Amino acid sequence: MAVNLTAPTAEDLLPVAGIRLATASAGIKKPGRQDVVLIELAEGSETAAVYTRNAFCAAPVILARQNQKHTASRYLLINSGNANAGTGETGMRAARQCCQSLADLAGVDATAVLPFSTGVIGQPLPVDKITAVLPEAMQSLAEDNWLQAAQAIMTTDTVAKAKSMQLTLAGKTVIITGMSKGSGMIRPDMATMLAYITTDAAVSHAVLTTMLHKAMNQSFNRITVDGDTSTNDACVLVATGQAANKTIDSITSEEGERLLTALTEICRYLAQAVVRDGEGATKFISIYIKQGKSQEECRMAAYAIAHSPLVKTALFASDPNWGRILAAVGRSGIEGLDVSTVTINIGDVCIVDQGQPAADYTEEKGQAVMNEAEIDITVWLGRGQAEDMVWTCDFSYDYVKINAEYRT
Amino acid sequence: MAVNLTAPTAEDLLPVAGIRLATASAGIKKPGRQDVVLIELAEGSETAAVYTRNAFCAAPVILARQNQKHTASRYLLINSGNANAGTGETGMRAARQCCQSLADLAGVDATAVLPFSTGVIGQPLPVDKITAVLPEAMQSLAEDNWLQAAQAIMTTDTVAKAKSMQLTLAGKTVIITGMSKGSGMIRPDMATMLAYITTDAAVSHAVLTTMLHKAMNQSFNRITVDGDTSTNDACVLVATGQAANKTIDSITSEEGERLLTALTEICRYLAQAVVRDGEGATKFISIYIKQGKSQEECRMAAYAIAHSPLVKTALFASDPNWGRILAAVGRSGIEGLDVSTVTINIGDVCIVDQGQPAADYTEEKGQAVMNEAEIDITVWLGRGQAEDMVWTCDFSYDYVKINAEYRT
Repeated sequence: MAVNLTAPTAEDLLPVAGIRLATASAGIKKPGRQDVVLIELAEGSETAAVYTRNAFCAAPVILARQNQKHTASRYLLINSGNANAGTGETGMRAARQCCQSLADLAGVDATAVLPFSTGVIGQPLPVDKITAVLPEAMQSLAEDNWLQAAQAIMTTDTVAKAKSMQLTLAGKTVIITGMSKGSGMIRPDMATMLAYITTDAAVSHAVLTTMLHKAMNQSFNRITVDGDTSTNDACVLVATGQAANKTIDSITSEEGERLLTALTEICRYLAQAVVRDGEGATKFISIYIKQGKSQEECRMAAYAIAHSPLVKTALFASDPNWGRILAAVGRSGIEGLDVSTVTINIGDVCIVDQGQPAADYTEEKGQAVMNEAEIDITVWLGRGQAEDMVWTCDFSYDYVKINAEYRT
Repeated sequence: MAVNLTAPTAEDLLPVAGIRLATASAGIKKPGRQDVVLIELAEGSETAAVYTRNAFCAAPVILARQNQKHTASRYLLINSGNANAGTGETGMRAARQCCQSLADLAGVDATAVLPFSTGVIGQPLPVDKITAVLPEAMQSLAEDNWLQAAQAIMTTDTVAKAKSMQLTLAGKTVIITGMSKGSGMIRPDMATMLAYITTDAAVSHAVLTTMLHKAMNQSFNRITVDGDTSTNDACVLVATGQAANKTIDSITSEEGERLLTALTEICRYLAQAVVRDGEGATKFISIYIKQGKSQEECRMAAYAIAHSPLVKTALFASDPNWGRILAAVGRSGIEGLDVSTVTINIGDVCIVDQGQPAADYTEEKGQAVMNEAEIDITVWLGRGQAEDMVWTCDFSYDYVKINAEYRT
C-alpha cells in the first residue's frame, strides 16, 4: 500500500566505515521474526540524538538520554514488537538490564549502550528473550547488514526504509547511510519513531548536533500521519570519522554546508518514506502554507489540514471536496484571519481565489488532480511573508483496520 | 448505528406557545426529501444566538449575526443539503435573497429573518428552489411540527434529535423544546452544527444571552466527533414570553437558576445526541480530566484523547490498548507534566496508578470495560484542583465510508 515507495536492495545501502550491524530473532511479538538490532559504533565516533517531547516518554528514551550524557556511545540496542512505554519502574529496570547484559558481553560501560524500543505500549519488556540473543548478535556484527536492520526495526511498516549517499569532502570520499521506521503514531515532535543515520565523515560533536537539529526541522519534524506523537521517537546521528577527512568544526564551512545538505536529503527521504508507508496510506500529500505573518501560524494551518479526518477521508476518496480544506484553515486558530485574502490551490488547480470560488474551477479539473497519488495543497494566506509545510497521507479503511486489529 | 439514542415521537415534543414550524421539500440535494425548515417566532420573543468561531464562517452565519443585531428576529429559515459556505460574495447574495423572499411573504423587514444552512461546503445555494417552497411553508406553520423540523435539518444524522421539558416557575407552567443536528465536522467552538431551543418563558434579553453561554459551556462546547469545527455552527435560544411568568431578569434568582438548569439539561441531551449519532459511531465516550493546574490544561488533555485516531480506533475495536491514552495525554502540551503523579481509569478499572501500571490490572478487566457501548475515561493529573471533560465517540470503518462517499 505504500505510496511510490519501494524498499532499497542490499546493494543500494553503502557500508559506513566504523559501523557494524547485526539482527536477531528474540520472539518478542511474532516468533521467527527478526526483532532485535544491534549497531556497533567504532571508538572515537561522535553521536547526536533527539528524542520525543511526549511528556510520558518510554523507559528506553529516558535511559538513552541519561547514558548519552554520561559516556561516548558505543552500541545502539533496538527492539521492535514492544515499546517498553507506560511500564513505570519495571520498564526502567528492564531497559537497564538489557544495556548491562550487552555491556558485559562487549566489555564496555553500560552507559555506552543506548536502548531503543518500538511496538505495543504498556506491556512488560521480555528482558530474558532479548538478552538471550545478544551473544549471537555480537558474533554476527557486519558492515553490510543495513537492509536486515531496516527490516528488523519495522512494526506496522510495510516497506523497509533506508538510503545511502556518497559525496567528496576536501578530496575524501564520505558515505552517509540511514534508516528509519514508523507508520502510525506519527507526528514527530523533535524526531520520528526511530531513525538512525550514520556517516564516516569526521565532524565535531557541536557541529554534528547542530546538523541533526537543522536536518530534523526540514524532514522528520515536517511529517504527520495521525497527529499522535509517539512515546518512543528517537533519531540518532553518528559520525565515525573514519573517512579521514579534516574534522568539520564549522557548519558554515563549505564542507559543513555540503554535508548538511546531504544529511538533510537523507533525512527528507527517510521522513517522507514514513509518510508514504503511513498506516493505510494511498496518497502522499504535501501541504504548503505561504504568505503568513509568522512561520508558527503557517504551521498551525498546515497541521489543521493535515490532521483533519474530513480532509484525509476526502483525499482517500479522491473527492475534490475542497470546502473541508477551507474549513480546516478557518478553524486553525490564526488570529484575525480574513478569508478575502486567502487563495487555495490543489496541485495547479486554483479552487479559492482571494476568498471567492475560483471562476474557472470545474469539478473535472478538481477530480483530475485529486486522482493523483501525490497531491500538493497550497494555501496563500495573503497576510505576510512567512511560510511552512508538512507532509502527510490520507485516511483509509485500512487505517482503521490496522489500528483496530493492531494487538490481535 | 447511533449509540443508545432513539428519535423522540411527535408526542414527546411539547409545543411552545409563540413558536410555529413548517417544513418543505425544495430538492436541494435529494429530490423528495424535506430540506427546508421555517420557524416563526411570535412578536415580543427574545432571541440569543452563538455562532461558529471558524474564521471562514458561512454566508448565512455572517448574515444572521448582522440581522440579529439590527432587528428583533421573527423567522428562522434553515436549509439542509447545502452549507452556503466557501461561496464568497455569491453566497452572501444568495442568503440575502432567501431572507428577502421570506420577508416579503411575511410582511417583515428582511433583517427579521435569520438564515441557516448545513450540508456540502463550496457549492452555490439553489436560491430559486428554496424561495419557491416558502409560500407553501408559510401556509403550513403549526406549533406541533417539531419532529418534522428535527428530521428536515438532518444531513448525515441517522436519528432526529429533539427534547422537551416542562417546569413550573412561580406558579406558571413553562415549556422548553429544542432540536439539534450534526454528526460530522463536529468540534463546536461556541455552538454546534445547528441547534434551536425555544421556551415560552419570559426572560430578559441579557439573562437569555447569559443562560445560552452558560448552557453551551456545559453541553455543545464539550463535544467532539472529529475535531473539525464547522463553518456553519449556530445555536439559537428563543424565549417567547407567552407562559406569562414574571419576566426573569436575574440569572441568580430562584426562577433564573431553575430555568438555566432545565436549559442546560436540554442542551446536554441535544449535544450528547450529536455524539451518539456521530458519523460511524459505535461507542459513546466521556473523558474526565481531574486534578489539573487549570481548566485549560484539563481541556487540552481531554481533547488530545478525544481526537487521537489511535485511541478512537482502539475504542472501536474494544481493544484495551490503554498505552494510546497515556501517549495522548503525554503529547497534549501540558507544561512540566510528570507521569509519576498520573492515574488513569477506564470505567472503574485502574490501568495506570501514579505512573505505574496498576498492580491488579488484567487484560480481562480491561476487555470487559472496553466491551461496553458507553465508556468513561478518567485521568487524574495529580497537580491541582481544576477539572474539565468532553464527550466523544469512536472511529470506525463507517466514519471513513461516510466521509469518503459524502458527496456521491
